[in-house]
Amino acid sequence: MRTVYNTATSLDGFIADQDNSLEWLFSVEEPEPGSADATALGETEDFIARAGAIVMGATTYEWIVEHESGKPWPYQVPTWVLTHRELPRVGGNLVFAAADSDQELRDLHAEMVGAADGRDVWVVGGGRLAADLARLGLLDEVVVSIAPVSLGGGAPLLDGRVRLRALEAKLLGAFACLRYEVVRD
Amino acid sequence: MRTVYNTATSLDGFIADQDNSLEWLFSVEEPEPGSADATALGETEDFIARAGAIVMGATTYEWIVEHESGKPWPYQVPTWVLTHRELPRVGGNLVFAAADSDQELRDLHAEMVGAADGRDVWVVGGGRLAADLARLGLLDEVVVSIAPVSLGGGAPLLDGRVRLRALEAKLLGAFACLRYEVVRD
Repeated sequence: MRTVYNTATSLDGFIADQDNSLEWLFSVEEPEPGSADATALGETEDFIARAGAIVMGATTYEWIVEHESGKPWPYQVPTWVLTHRELPRVGGNLVFAAADSDQELRDLHAEMVGAADGRDVWVVGGGRLAADLARLGLLDEVVVSIAPVSLGGGAPLLDGRVRLRALEAKLLGAFACLRYEVVRD
Repeated sequence: MRTVYNTATSLDGFIADQDNSLEWLFSVEEPEPGSADATALGETEDFIARAGAIVMGATTYEWIVEHESGKPWPYQVPTWVLTHRELPRVGGNLVFAAADSDQELRDLHAEMVGAADGRDVWVVGGGRLAADLARLGLLDEVVVSIAPVSLGGGAPLLDGRVRLRALEAKLLGAFACLRYEVVRD
């Protein structure tokens, strides 16, 4: 049971570009069935299917709502959205909550772990939330699928200093997939 | 004979941190002889030894001068420093030049390729120069040794949008080493 930040990123460390477009990602993300790219996506889907709880920041949530507009909310498991704003509820098992202090973030994380019931907690994004969880010693792993592009700007992968230990590096089709353990200071 | 941007970077795409310190890099860069980390450094050293010409921006040059202060200039082959400023000449086979237009950068690159005499041109940094060369179709490969840390800010790995094709991904000790071909648009 781990808390895992699993995301796609550009080589230069952006999870969304300055226009909030994902053209850079989807241009490499329509793989042939059975291809290595399909394997990369399949591994991510397997990870998501194993997660017992999900957490994301407000910007990530708004991004999903905007880009999946009209589709059913994609996740079944309890999903925390950390926000200080009123956000539209698009269905699903959504919990809106504000973490105004480190202690509140610790408490919310404990709730997520409880809800996950022995399965992983998936940190979808963004980079501020992931870095805060790491700073508090609450993040176990970082898994990145690096799209073969630099963006030159956008939303940061990790908005802070996080020490890591590399566990795995491999090519899966167009993506370089890196897996890290978070080093507790 | 290729023009190759070969650099160390943090996972979040910074080649120097906001304090211009490399503590984050050197903290993982004193490997035991024979270790995988030593292999990673050895591969970079082999690449450097094969380069026939070197090019870097002014900030990268100043960084080397500051951090290698008192030591001999580390490179023997002709080295271009692209700058609009007067910079101290610390020895070596240094050419200071300004590239005020795409055409001037093309012309300088042709000079480098000529000087390299069939060997590679090594682009040391920074991210603006590498992205400009890529935009002009003058960059062939990007090779990154990713240190196991995020920095949250600093000097960007690639200061612009560059499309790539992944050739290789491997762990060498603490580093994830990725090699890319630059895709010409």
